Amino acid sequence: MPEISILTETELRKAVPLNIEAIEQIERAFAALASGQVVMPPILSMEIADFNGEVDAKTAYVPGLESFAFKVSPGFFDNPKIGLPSNSGLMILFSAKTGFVEAVMLDNGYLTEVRTAAAGAVAAKHLAVKEASRACIVGAGLQARLQLQALCLVRPITHAQIWARVGGKGTAAAAELSALLGIEVTAADDLSQAVREADVIVTTTPSTQPLISADWLRPGQHVTAMGSDQHTKNELDPECLKRADLYVPDRQSQTELMGELRAALAAGAVPSGTVFSELGDIVSGKAKGRTSDAEITICDLTGTGVQDTAIATFARAQALKVNAGTKINA
Amino acid sequence: MPEISILTETELRKAVPLNIEAIEQIERAFAALASGQVVMPPILSMEIADFNGEVDAKTAYVPGLESFAFKVSPGFFDNPKIGLPSNSGLMILFSAKTGFVEAVMLDNGYLTEVRTAAAGAVAAKHLAVKEASRACIVGAGLQARLQLQALCLVRPITHAQIWARVGGKGTAAAAELSALLGIEVTAADDLSQAVREADVIVTTTPSTQPLISADWLRPGQHVTAMGSDQHTKNELDPECLKRADLYVPDRQSQTELMGELRAALAAGAVPSGTVFSELGDIVSGKAKGRTSDAEITICDLTGTGVQDTAIATFARAQALKVNAGTKINA
Repeated sequence: MPEISILTETELRKAVPLNIEAIEQIERAFAALASGQVVMPPILSMEIADFNGEVDAKTAYVPGLESFAFKVSPGFFDNPKIGLPSNSGLMILFSAKTGFVEAVMLDNGYLTEVRTAAAGAVAAKHLAVKEASRACIVGAGLQARLQLQALCLVRPITHAQIWARVGGKGTAAAAELSALLGIEVTAADDLSQAVREADVIVTTTPSTQPLISADWLRPGQHVTAMGSDQHTKNELDPECLKRADLYVPDRQSQTELMGELRAALAAGAVPSGTVFSELGDIVSGKAKGRTSDAEITICDLTGTGVQDTAIATFARAQALKVNAGTKINA
Repeated sequence: MPEISILTETELRKAVPLNIEAIEQIERAFAALASGQVVMPPILSMEIADFNGEVDAKTAYVPGLESFAFKVSPGFFDNPKIGLPSNSGLMILFSAKTGFVEAVMLDNGYLTEVRTAAAGAVAAKHLAVKEASRACIVGAGLQARLQLQALCLVRPITHAQIWARVGGKGTAAAAELSALLGIEVTAADDLSQAVREADVIVTTTPSTQPLISADWLRPGQHVTAMGSDQHTKNELDPECLKRADLYVPDRQSQTELMGELRAALAAGAVPSGTVFSELGDIVSGKAKGRTSDAEITICDLTGTGVQDTAIATFARAQALKVNAGTKINA
């Protein structure tokens, strides 16, 4: 049996920072998804009600990549009461040729954070206007921060506003991001104004009620909605999807169940049966993205196993370069 | 984050031999399954046709156990062409209270072999006649050997016959098992005769056509059919289930899809809608097992995530006792 690398979160953070190289890996993964050859089974989900926990597992085989990842993501929502984070978990990388384990990545969700932020950058790269300089980030959590960071890698952002339901959180995130990115980042009091002023809007909240109204949108804007990943969540008013010139799901079979498309279909804002080009179709050139600076575009991200396989394959390669990790002969 | 144990196949083989203690763990797991509190989602399955591979993932939460296992089992059937085993894989043990990873068991399927053989022993313990001394094992692979080994731990077996489609394989297995177990083990040429002579029959093949005819069975016999775990497999003639006084599935929702019950339902040998007591119901005393030495009993094993959680939880405890494994601070 070949040697197996055990990689910790600390090692993975060093090996795979959120940078343009990571974004390119995710961009290629979306192109592969559009090839139609990807195998991506439905998510396995288990609830552990006794401890207010849930466990999700995702995997995907991407032809052309030598490995496939299997991700197990527990979320135990009483953990913070005892001073522990809610989310943890790992990715296991397998050889796509033999099925043998190649690496165990004890990342506590770090690689998911990176591949999720990278998908936001891929969306902006292909859908936002080229000169987009003003961002509005809705939410002030970890993913809000990473989304702005990723966005700055693909568009010349000079100003960003952070809106959070709890005001203080936006201020703290703004100060931190301003220092980190060297651009002007402020906390927004008025979400509608912050949205109106932005070229790119990224929504990152677990909201179950729409936060963004369709009449706040104006020609030339791009919206990435990445908060909704469950059938209970919804960040954009259904009318936003009707108003948009282009709506792009990461995977329509997912967004119609747990993305913004779900609420839009339910509200009748989008006729049922409508088939949309997916982000991968646009990345790979199979479908058109933005065709003018006047269009309104929306990208709906729910997260795909293909991104996990891409980031884990990349992480192993990067770790091997610097000989990181504990090697086990199983 | 708490320390994580990385355990290799070698370490796990030492920590968890197939013995009466392992069988008791699996027996308790079946009792838990009967409590109705177990959470066991459907199996996640992914085919990688490009490399003649498939990957299955199973998990189960068992109330009362502090951990739950998540098992990923790749099977890549071209591996033998390049001198590698088809099956590999691992189990990950998580805290059922926090979701944190506790152990990564790089067992290459070893723990599955043990928990599967142990389930055969649990079936025989609760269903075979007490004085059962003669066994017939159908098939001569690894699981055939382990099933006989496990059976000898719960019943006073003195003679065993091994039948294999390829004759030489039965002879080799018989010689090996005779030496290992110190009982008389011979290769059978005539399966019908070997079945007629046995008190306990265990079928362990991947056959897609019935191997055992109903008219070979006689009062007092017990049959454990553990080979069928897919909708294409079938070892017992459907009439066997009709002939039996007691048919016991490990999990009826599974056996009707991929066990012997599937073919029996399809053939009309069992009326659809029939509800059977499961192995766990009998283990826990909720339902009656064998009620006389004249009955014919059949147990249909397809394998459950509960067994994985039980064996992995036990394996970690045993490994910790002897301080086995590599410790990682993730």
